[in-house]
Amino acid sequence: MRYLVRVEIRLKKDLHDPEGTVALSCLRDLGLREIVSVRSGKVYYLEIETGSEDEALKIAEEACRRLLANPVKDEYSISVVSRI
Amino acid sequence: MRYLVRVEIRLKKDLHDPEGTVALSCLRDLGLREIVSVRSGKVYYLEIETGSEDEALKIAEEACRRLLANPVKDEYSISVVSRI
Repeated sequence: MRYLVRVEIRLKKDLHDPEGTVALSCLRDLGLREIVSVRSGKVYYLEIETGSEDEALKIAEEACRRLLANPVKDEYSISVVSRI
Repeated sequence: MRYLVRVEIRLKKDLHDPEGTVALSCLRDLGLREIVSVRSGKVYYLEIETGSEDEALKIAEEACRRLLANPVKDEYSISVVSRI
């Protein structure tokens, strides 16, 4: 079976996010002054060929741990979007 | 009222995603051969100070259109995460 798994990687909450800060500044310069904070992150959609949803989550977790996320600065969340 | 709005920006489906391709190659080199496809994207969490959820969505839409997304190559989705 093939699963579509969504991985989201964000900077840990207490870390400064320069990309978010720049985006906020630009948006406010554009007149969007209702926006008071921006935090940025990465998203990955993985297609995983495996026997079960649990197994797909485990593989995505390993992908985060070994490559996609930096444990020093990142936090991440993983969810199965659908079976495809 | 303040709303937390999530914006996700992805390359249009028919466009080649070099970052996803590199990630896929690295993950497979690490032995994660169950992963057969990777697509990458960006995520932004906006805090928006406004009167209603609908208004917050409209402001986030304008932020995408005017800064965060590139209409030539990107597609995006917007959702209100919570009132904060």
